[in-house]
Amino acid sequence: MVLCDIGNSYLHFYYNGRVWKVQAERLERDEALLPMYYVSVSQKKTKYLLEIFPEAINLTPYMLLDTAYIGLGADRIAACKGVSDGVIVDAGSAITIDVMQDNMHLGGCILPGLVMYGKMYRAISSVLGGELNLAIEFNAFPQNTRDALSYGALKSIVLTIESIAKNKKLYFTGGDGKFLARFFAGAIQDDSLVFKGMLRTIAEQKGGGR
Amino acid sequence: MVLCDIGNSYLHFYYNGRVWKVQAERLERDEALLPMYYVSVSQKKTKYLLEIFPEAINLTPYMLLDTAYIGLGADRIAACKGVSDGVIVDAGSAITIDVMQDNMHLGGCILPGLVMYGKMYRAISSVLGGELNLAIEFNAFPQNTRDALSYGALKSIVLTIESIAKNKKLYFTGGDGKFLARFFAGAIQDDSLVFKGMLRTIAEQKGGGR
Repeated sequence: MVLCDIGNSYLHFYYNGRVWKVQAERLERDEALLPMYYVSVSQKKTKYLLEIFPEAINLTPYMLLDTAYIGLGADRIAACKGVSDGVIVDAGSAITIDVMQDNMHLGGCILPGLVMYGKMYRAISSVLGGELNLAIEFNAFPQNTRDALSYGALKSIVLTIESIAKNKKLYFTGGDGKFLARFFAGAIQDDSLVFKGMLRTIAEQKGGGR
Repeated sequence: MVLCDIGNSYLHFYYNGRVWKVQAERLERDEALLPMYYVSVSQKKTKYLLEIFPEAINLTPYMLLDTAYIGLGADRIAACKGVSDGVIVDAGSAITIDVMQDNMHLGGCILPGLVMYGKMYRAISSVLGGELNLAIEFNAFPQNTRDALSYGALKSIVLTIESIAKNKKLYFTGGDGKFLARFFAGAIQDDSLVFKGMLRTIAEQKGGGR
């Protein structure tokens, strides 16, 4: 059984503890990847998957989470299902921050992904172009444009996660999850958080006799 | 005497305490606006100004600030020159945050402007489109996508300003300066901070016998 998490940039796959990503346009048919279950936040990328794997099953209708949030993405539901108490940070094209307490979702917020900050700066002015300095230190104020941009992006992301997490356990996933986890002592980094929630959903369904 | 602050989006003018903005493409010749002094962060927009007002004088070479920062924009230098001790937030297409102490510039950082967050979210996914909710409250976690995006953008900006300002006096300027100042008790909002620094520079030059 293969799981697929369709994001805004990539299709992420999971098989037997192994995780990998593929560009939607480069997807190729492989019978060994069946049966396949998926969740998606992109209708456009889902079309690519279903053209190559028409038998893939959408898990979203079976993903139940105790929440008052309207419009919570299937990937966020899945990641939250894997954590009964804690704060889940999924850092990809967007950075989502969700709060779980006693298996209940208390709400969450969204920041642009790290890559998007770079793009946004370039869109404001060509003077603000170039790669961010991800090794920036927070213990001194920046003394040049590149550091000023990097400090702004990173510090604002880290402070927002801190303010939401307070003393709760932090779980990081997504492409930049490993990088961001380094700013938080005791944080857990888990590439397969979304997939664990999907597996739990499948187990619940089977347990329920479906 | 008229002053002009050329930003990435608009040309901002100052005359006798009055401040107004014009799109570069809509600028029209008016002899009453002479003599004119300008600072600029956009070569492209500067061309528009100099086509209509070729006699306008660039103040940048005369703007001296005690700083180790390399590449500090002329508008930031001007705004900093108006504040001997405090933190200056200029909130336009970009949000710049600069720290002054005993007339010395200690460094600064840059965040995307509020409008850019909206653009950035839309670029990630059409699901994340729409106007931000600028009336968002920070006392509860967001329960829908629009609030989650608004909370992310605003909270991250406010926390970054707070962390840099600590107990220092805060000065807000720029198009979103008035809006952001509301989040900080005792903050000063001043549309003409950049122009005050330009006036100070001109006075210094005259005092120096130029």
